This record gives sequence, structure tokens and C-alpha cells, in this order.
Amino acid sequence: MESFTDLLIVGAGPAGLMLAAWASQFNVSARLIDNQAERTGSGHADGLHSRTLEILDSFDVVDGVLKDAYRVNELASWNPDPHNPNYVKRTARLAAQPHDLSRFPQVSLNQGLTEQVLLDYLDRTGRVRLERSTRPESLVVDDGLCDSDEAHPITLTIRNTANGCAAETVRAKYVVGCDGAHSWVRKQLGIRMEGEHTNKHFGVMDIVPLTDFPDIRLSCIIHSNCGSIMTVPREHRLVRLYVQLGETKAGERSSAQSATPQTILDQARSVMRPYSLDFRICDWQSVYTIGQRVASRFSYRDRIFLCGDAVHTHSPMMGQGMNVSMQDSFNLGWKLGSVLEGSAKREILTTYEAERRSIALQLIELDREMAEFYSHGPSEQSREYQKYREGFGRFLSGVAVKYGPGQLVSQSLSITKAKSSTNGAACSHASVTSDPERAKGVTIGQRMPSLKVVCQAEANVIHLADVLPSNGRWRVVVFAGDLTTPQQWEKTQALGELLGKVCRRYTGGAERTHSAIEVLLIHSGARTAFDILRLHDVYHPWDETLGWDYWKVFADDAGSMDPGCKDSQAYHGYGVDMHTGCVVVLRPDHHVSYIGSLEDGKDISTFFEGVLLPQRKSQHEVNDGSNP
Amino acid sequence: MESFTDLLIVGAGPAGLMLAAWASQFNVSARLIDNQAERTGSGHADGLHSRTLEILDSFDVVDGVLKDAYRVNELASWNPDPHNPNYVKRTARLAAQPHDLSRFPQVSLNQGLTEQVLLDYLDRTGRVRLERSTRPESLVVDDGLCDSDEAHPITLTIRNTANGCAAETVRAKYVVGCDGAHSWVRKQLGIRMEGEHTNKHFGVMDIVPLTDFPDIRLSCIIHSNCGSIMTVPREHRLVRLYVQLGETKAGERSSAQSATPQTILDQARSVMRPYSLDFRICDWQSVYTIGQRVASRFSYRDRIFLCGDAVHTHSPMMGQGMNVSMQDSFNLGWKLGSVLEGSAKREILTTYEAERRSIALQLIELDREMAEFYSHGPSEQSREYQKYREGFGRFLSGVAVKYGPGQLVSQSLSITKAKSSTNGAACSHASVTSDPERAKGVTIGQRMPSLKVVCQAEANVIHLADVLPSNGRWRVVVFAGDLTTPQQWEKTQALGELLGKVCRRYTGGAERTHSAIEVLLIHSGARTAFDILRLHDVYHPWDETLGWDYWKVFADDAGSMDPGCKDSQAYHGYGVDMHTGCVVVLRPDHHVSYIGSLEDGKDISTFFEGVLLPQRKSQHEVNDGSNP
Repeated sequence: MESFTDLLIVGAGPAGLMLAAWASQFNVSARLIDNQAERTGSGHADGLHSRTLEILDSFDVVDGVLKDAYRVNELASWNPDPHNPNYVKRTARLAAQPHDLSRFPQVSLNQGLTEQVLLDYLDRTGRVRLERSTRPESLVVDDGLCDSDEAHPITLTIRNTANGCAAETVRAKYVVGCDGAHSWVRKQLGIRMEGEHTNKHFGVMDIVPLTDFPDIRLSCIIHSNCGSIMTVPREHRLVRLYVQLGETKAGERSSAQSATPQTILDQARSVMRPYSLDFRICDWQSVYTIGQRVASRFSYRDRIFLCGDAVHTHSPMMGQGMNVSMQDSFNLGWKLGSVLEGSAKREILTTYEAERRSIALQLIELDREMAEFYSHGPSEQSREYQKYREGFGRFLSGVAVKYGPGQLVSQSLSITKAKSSTNGAACSHASVTSDPERAKGVTIGQRMPSLKVVCQAEANVIHLADVLPSNGRWRVVVFAGDLTTPQQWEKTQALGELLGKVCRRYTGGAERTHSAIEVLLIHSGARTAFDILRLHDVYHPWDETLGWDYWKVFADDAGSMDPGCKDSQAYHGYGVDMHTGCVVVLRPDHHVSYIGSLEDGKDISTFFEGVLLPQRKSQHEVNDGSNP
Repeated sequence: MESFTDLLIVGAGPAGLMLAAWASQFNVSARLIDNQAERTGSGHADGLHSRTLEILDSFDVVDGVLKDAYRVNELASWNPDPHNPNYVKRTARLAAQPHDLSRFPQVSLNQGLTEQVLLDYLDRTGRVRLERSTRPESLVVDDGLCDSDEAHPITLTIRNTANGCAAETVRAKYVVGCDGAHSWVRKQLGIRMEGEHTNKHFGVMDIVPLTDFPDIRLSCIIHSNCGSIMTVPREHRLVRLYVQLGETKAGERSSAQSATPQTILDQARSVMRPYSLDFRICDWQSVYTIGQRVASRFSYRDRIFLCGDAVHTHSPMMGQGMNVSMQDSFNLGWKLGSVLEGSAKREILTTYEAERRSIALQLIELDREMAEFYSHGPSEQSREYQKYREGFGRFLSGVAVKYGPGQLVSQSLSITKAKSSTNGAACSHASVTSDPERAKGVTIGQRMPSLKVVCQAEANVIHLADVLPSNGRWRVVVFAGDLTTPQQWEKTQALGELLGKVCRRYTGGAERTHSAIEVLLIHSGARTAFDILRLHDVYHPWDETLGWDYWKVFADDAGSMDPGCKDSQAYHGYGVDMHTGCVVVLRPDHHVSYIGSLEDGKDISTFFEGVLLPQRKSQHEVNDGSNP
């Protein structure tokens, strides 16, 4: 039996499911296989940080996570009581994250429920079906075919162990290994993990605690003279405890590695004195040995890619694993989808390794420091911990992840000038430069934060993210400034004319009005100042059956609608001049590619020429967006 | 074939589904039958007001509604242009509702999707199954059995028309007719509808408009010299138009009654000049004749009840129908559930007709005025309309619905005094009196508004409504005031001791810790001021397996957690003194039964003696909430 597929995803953990979610958004054939018969049950990863929730929200599934999740709002630090060093005492409380970080908090929820939310999504969208109890057995790449768009250079044998062990030969254009720390795909490629394990062991258990410890429903770092504990409250009255079990000598096998709930409990009790601790319900238990390792490569010839634990492993206490894994495949998915659909150039695939391996290396470095802190505690504990959190909180939340300049991220003006004065080498980079000063609250290469704006036609306060679903489209966000001044009106209309042409160049697909680029407009004036139908059609495209599109023009006067909002919060928050405005180009994953002025339309055109492929017109000429 | 059931619900429209949702919360047997083979498809009712969304939220299903619904935030008023009376012109914009009305807006969504959300809920909870294609054929009541708790006084024959037309005899303790304007149940009881139809006709259609009318995504009242239109934007680009078609003379059959989408469109075009209007998609179309009618009775011997259109019909333009219907059965459902479960006295059922028929009469009166306004327009249009909205908005939203004093709603002190000085007759009323001055932002008999508070144990800002799910339990909300003062602490502990006894008296069921009453505490101080485990156990009940309950104590310092919140907003909003506090008793439907001081615990005890039935202890003595 032989079959063909555009994309084969090996492994249906969080990384593989996120990739399948992306694949569901594109007109591609994709298969998702997993050697397990069922999804993760209890335990395993449980931390979800704010950027991950933003991503889940962009697939409209975050409510399913938030419904059950515990919100990590406050952290408490406990240390030996100076008056009674055998007892612990609260020494500090601190906010888990700054208020302006994200519209979502940090939460905790067991991995299985997060997987379920994505599985439900795949069921609903109905494009990618998960094939369980199915494992890959062989993988061969025909290197000679790797440069051909139409070829299927990868041949795999897969076997469904539940279905009479039938073997199948699958020929794929692309393969992605999301198959965990012991990745079979990685091993086929001979890619090494670099780094090593320590000899530090932590017992982990998810229990419903019976205790008089007053902060049991807060996330706590407890340092005592008998060792450390980290606690993370969870859904359904559960609390996860990470309990330090001591170190082993090199090569020695430790009793720690065979810890039971009872031995972990005994150790936890000695740390938490004078408080009682017991449980009747233990949902899950395991032992972790601290270690930090990163794969030497994340891809093979831009045909086979690795995501998640397959390319980085680290300690679990920061709750990063599930997040970074999903963010890997969130970075990769739209690129594969766009290339397979024929809307983007194949070269963009090289950016996956460039962008994500550097993030993994930063994470590993941070994890090494944090693991040391968790194991030993600092000398001046609470202040030190606060410092750690402040320094690393934004990175850990995922919102500060920044991709460097390249084909998909323009250089900023200052950097280009500096470079050209030294060596001038930026040949692989986008051919346009950004002027980041025009949107000081936005960082090129980072995800665009979401702020509140008002839908002009519906008088409805929304988050900008609500109109940026993960559907594979690029966005040009036009901050038009004050449209009651003739100058801004004319600039905006002229830009609209130019953007209309750019959008049409990349318009294809079965619906002939579907462009790879969508234009949104946010102006700084009152919502009632003008009728949006007077704007150029690119800002409210026409459809013969559905009429005008009223959901692309926004005002920055949320305060007029809702006393809980302020006016000008978008312009203020994004750091954009209220009069002159600017233009921001967003990738399909919401990372900022470009910032320029309203007069820089040609740069935008040039930028997209480096990334997208012009589409052939179908039988009718593509609708130019004007009212017939 | 003969069977027995506690409750038979006839009709699975919004009212019947809401009643079934309640039945799912109680340990009762309930059946839901409907003569249709499928739920409502397109069209029909589409307005959902804020109280209805609060109710749907209390069953945790509101997200399913809000996901697709259009939010009615702004209304626009259009009238003849004084300079060109053949053309209409916008004369006013106004907010759809005041900001402090509810945490939910007014929305529009087709009835079928609202039904689907409740059908999904019934599927998930799995206790009540909808039997489709099933109609009742006969109904007999044995009056002699109506006073016996254990009897099934009602005998119905029902027939499943899809299933070989098998007939079944069902003997029911209670029957509720939610079977619409032509209610079969009402006819069996010989209950008359009082009131009459007018001769005013409106064409209604749900279209995806192709138009240059600038406010097409706002809800508009358009008065022209050629007649009136009311527009309501909807989900999925739809807009509902109510188009005035003129009046017929008495007894005359009008061409209006056979209006087609094309004739409605033609009339709409003449009203909306100079704007264009067309459509390619018409989702639904109908003609309404204005009329206002209310049933003379809503119940028969407190064994058979009628809800929704079965007892009141009115014009559709205010979008009230679906709301008042669901609110009828929301009022009735917990009463039936509590009585059937044996936790409440059977006499509470008389309050259904007393409470809901007076609301229906108020609605009908209002509807008569509004229909007149929609048909003819006022002389000074925009101002008049604004006046209408301001006067009636709170009632229409459902949040101002107020139930008068009776068994379930205490009298307020001033009224009692006034009465006793005249005739002293209040024998059927609750035996305690409230002191409404202690919570000036709360109205006895109205639903308690939801404000933000902070969960003390989890440092999490929540809406009070989040901990008031519709589960059939009464709530005693203790506003403890400033617990850092010894006096308040002692009062609160003493009240806790008394409330513990009250809760235990009404504790029964399979889980022997399940009381009909739940105690919540909101204090006015800082969240970090004290450890909640020091409070009396009734404020954080103990469970041998699950430990302490950490989700019943709240602080009023949301500002410390979230800069978008203010401190003391609950005490301020509810109008409670920050130092001395008060106690509020809420019915399972969130309506306020009683307001008193922390010293009035005995009144609370007395109140519940008039409503609830003490429970027998099961094999073990009921847990008294203390730590073993």
C-alpha cells in the first residue's frame, strides 16, 4: 500500500497537535500519526504561559483551556524562619506577571486537557484526522528531489499496531518530528542532542492536599533547611509539588529515582514544617532529573523538521516545555502551509531553524540558572527571586520572544546604517528597512501586543487580536492617524490604492477574493467622525453576495464606549503618533515584519515580493474590490 | 404502556429547554417532549437581553451564545431630513444600555443557535433527554391527589409520531406547558388569553444586505414619510428588518399578510431613500400582526404550569419574547426541583404565578406603548426615543425585574411598619423583615448584580456571579466588613456558628455534606490581612477527601490585583458599610430574599424555616464542618 501526502506529522503531543491545527487552515493534505493509543491522561506538563494562550486564542480554543485552568496570579516565597530555623515562614509575595504583559495570565492545567482542546479543534475543522497506534518504521530521503516543488522526496513506512499491524508506504513532501525527547525522527537523521543531565533529582506529584499550609492555593517556592519545594496549584483542587530529593554521584543509581508518593510526601513534610500535609488523592507521580540539552540541528534540507522535546529538554519547574514546543510548531506551521499552498516562496522554510534554535538556546541558558536557584536558594532569597522573575518573566511568558532580521523580519533603520558602515552584509535579509521609531510600543521581530480598539461599523470594543485569527494571512495594519485632516485622508487613500494592487497580486485560491494579505485600518479620531464607505475599498472590500466588509476599520476611542477603557489606548500603547500614524506588517503568526510610514507603501510591496508568490488569475479577472 | 415521571415538560423551545436545564441540576426524573422533529432553524426570536445572558452564564453556556452573537451597543435614530423630506437622515445615536446595568450586553442571535446551546448543555449533563416528534393527546388531573406529595395526579397520553405512532400513558407529579402561543396544555386547562390583536402588520426578514446605508451594522429606528423600519444586525452578516406594512380594517384580509421578500424589500427601499438596498441571501421571512395578550392564569392547582408564549404574546420588535419565556421557566425550575427533591416546602410553587404574571402584565403594557411608537414615530423623534429607552431599558434588559414580598422575598422594614400601622395583614409573607438600608445598591426582590471581588486563597479577580452557578442552592452572602477589627471578627465568627447550624439542618442528599444553603463571605479589607483558615469552618468547609474549601472567602481589594479594577468596588457598588457590613440571602435564581445585619442570624434561620424542609440525617451524623 502506497500513498502520498503533503505533510506527515509524527507525534500528537502539544507540538504535533498545534502543527495539525495550522495544517487545518491551509488547502494541503496532512496526516498526523502517534504511536500511543490514547492522549496523555494525568500529569506531565502543566504550565501554560500567556503567549501560548494568545496562540490558542488565535485558533479560538482558549476558552476550553481557561474554563478549567488555575490562574497563576501571585507567587509566594517561603524561607526558614530566623527565629525558628526548622520552620518555614512567608518572606514575600509577588505578582506573577506585569499587567501590561498580555491580555492572558499564566495558568496551569494538565497536558491532557490542553491536548483535548486541540483534538476537539481538529474534530471540528475536520481536515486533519489523528491516526493513533501508528508508528513510523523507516524513513528515506531522496536528496535529488529536495529542490523540486512538486516532488515527494521522503518515503516512510508506517505501521498501525491496532489494525492487524498493516504496513503502509507514505511518500511525503514534508515530514515533521514532534515525537518527544526520544524522537525517532531525530534519530533517523542522526542529529545529536548537545548538553547533559545533572545528578539533581526532583520528585513530582499531583495531589489534592489535606493541609493547613495557608498558601496552598498560591504558587510557592519553599526553601527550608531540609531542601526545597515548588508548588503549583492546578485545576480541580489539585496541587503539583516539585520536591527536591537530593543529588547522586556520577554514575550512581539513586534511591531518588525510585521515589514513591509516600517518600516524596515524607520529604515534603519535613520541608513544610510546622504545617501539616497529607492526601487521599494522588493523580500522578514521577521523578525528574535536571538536565539541559538542545539538538545541533532542527531540520534536514528544509524537508524534515523537528519541534518540541525532540530538539530541547530542560527542567520542568518553569512550566516551559509545553509552551516552547507548541511555539516551535506555531512558528513552522504557517510557513509549511503557505509553501505547500503555493502562496509563499520555499526559501522561507530556512527561517524555522534560524528563529527557533536561538530561542531554545536562550531557554536552556536560563533554565540552568533557574534550576540552580530552585535547588539551593539564594542568599537573600525573596529579593533575589523577585529579580529572577523580573528579568526572565517576559521571556518565560513567551511574549518577548524576538526573531532576528531575515527574509521575514526587516532590519531596523539604525541597524542597517550601522551594518552598512561596517561590512554591509545583509544579503539574505529582507530588502527593506523599518523605521521602528514610528511605533515605539511595538518591537520588530516580536509578536504585536493586542490592545483594545472600537469596530467603527458596529460600535463594539474588541481586542485587535480578535481580528487576527490564525488563518495563514499576512496583515498590513494601517495606523491612519487623524483622518479628519485632509492630508492624512489623502495619504490613507493613496496608500489604499497601492495596497489594493499588492493584495490583488497575491490573490488566488478557490474563492477569487482571497488574498494572502489582509488590510486593517486603525485611526486615532472619533468613531463617528466619518462614514467608512468613503474610504478606499481595500479598507472594506466588496463581495457580490455578502456586500461590504464592515469589520476592518477601527477607531481608537474605546473610552467613548466603555468607561473602563481609555481613549487613544492603542495609539498610546503602540507608541504611534496620533496625527501622522504609521504602517505595521504582521506575519501570520503576529510577529512584526515591518514598520514604516504611510508613504512607504512601495517598501511594503518590495517586502512581499521577497516572500510571496504572485498568483495566476482564475477564469475571471480577480475582483479589484470596487463596487460593481 | 404506562410510566411515571416527576416532571413532564411539553415543548422544547427556549422556555422548555431552560426548564430542562434546571431539572438537570436536581435529583428528579424529568421528561421533555416536543412535537417537532427538529429544533428551530432560521429566523424567529433573536433578541437576548443582559439578564438572559446572566442566566445562561449561570449554567456555564453563555460563551456559546456570545461567540456568534451580534452585540447591540449603539442605537441610531433616523428621521425625515428637514431639507429633503423624502430622504432620511440620522438624528441621534444612543447607547443601548447604561454601563452599570450588567456585565453582559444586549445581543442578537437566531433562536435556533440559542436552543442549540441549551440542547448541548442537556447532552453534556445527560440527565434529561429530549424526545422529539412526540405530542400530547390527552390530559387528566385527579384533583383529589393534588395535595399529596407522593402522588402522580396528572395522567397524559403522549404519542411519538416518528416511532410507529406508539402511544404511552405517562403519570406525572407536575406538568409544564412550554408549548407556545397555541399551547395545547393551556387549552386543556381552559385558560383564556386576555387582550387582542391589532390590525397593524410588519414584514420581517433576515437578509445579508447589499447597501450603502452607513448604519447597517447598528440597530436603527428609521421613520420616513413612507413608513417605518427597525433594523437589528445579527450573526454572520445577517440583518433583521422589521418593515411596517400598513394597517387593515377590522375583519379585512390584507395583502400585507401575504407579503414576500420582494414586496417587503420594495417597501424598505422607499423608506430608506436615498440609500440603496438589495440582497442575494434571505435567511428567513415572515409577517407579524401586532397584538398583546396575557393568560388569565399561569397554573392549575400548582400541579400544571404554563411558561413563555403559552401565557403571553406581544410584538417582536423589542426582542423580548425569548427572554421573558426563558425567565418564566428560570423562575419556576428551581422551585419544582427543590420541591420534588424534598428540600423545599410545596407552598413555594404558588409564588410562580404571583411573580411571573405581574411581570407579563407590565411587559404587555410597555409593549403597547412601544408598538405605537414604532408604527407612528413621535413628534420630536430622537429625544422621545431616548426617553423611551431610558425609562424602559432596565426593565427590558430583565435586570430590573422585581418580585414582590411573599414567602420567598422578605418585606422591607419600612413597608412592614407602614402596613402594621394600617391593617397588619402580611400572613402569607415571609415572617422576617429586611433592612434594605444595609445594602443600598441591592434591591430586595431583584436579582443581585454581579461585581468583582478577589478570591482570597487564589489571588484571583472574579465576578461574584462566577461562584453563584445555577445549582439549586440558596446563598447567604456575609459582608463581614473590616475583619481586622476585633468586633467585626467576633460578630463574623458568631454568625458563622449560627449559620453552621442552619446549614446542617438542611443538609441531606447522597453526599452528606450537601446543604441546600451555601455561605459566602466578602470582607472589605486587604486580601493579605488574615489567613482564611482562622475563620469559622462554615466559611471554608472541610471534606475528608478534598480538604478545605478555599473558594468561599473574598476580599474587596481588586485594585491591588488589577489596575483596571478599583478597590472597594463591591462594598461601594452594593452600598454596604465597609466597617459594619451586612448579610444578604439569595434565592437559587439570584433574587434577593433578605438583607439584614451580622447580628440578624436568627432572622435568617427563621426565614429558611418558612421555606425549606429539615433533612433527616443519613447513617452517619452529618459532618459539622470541623476539622477531624
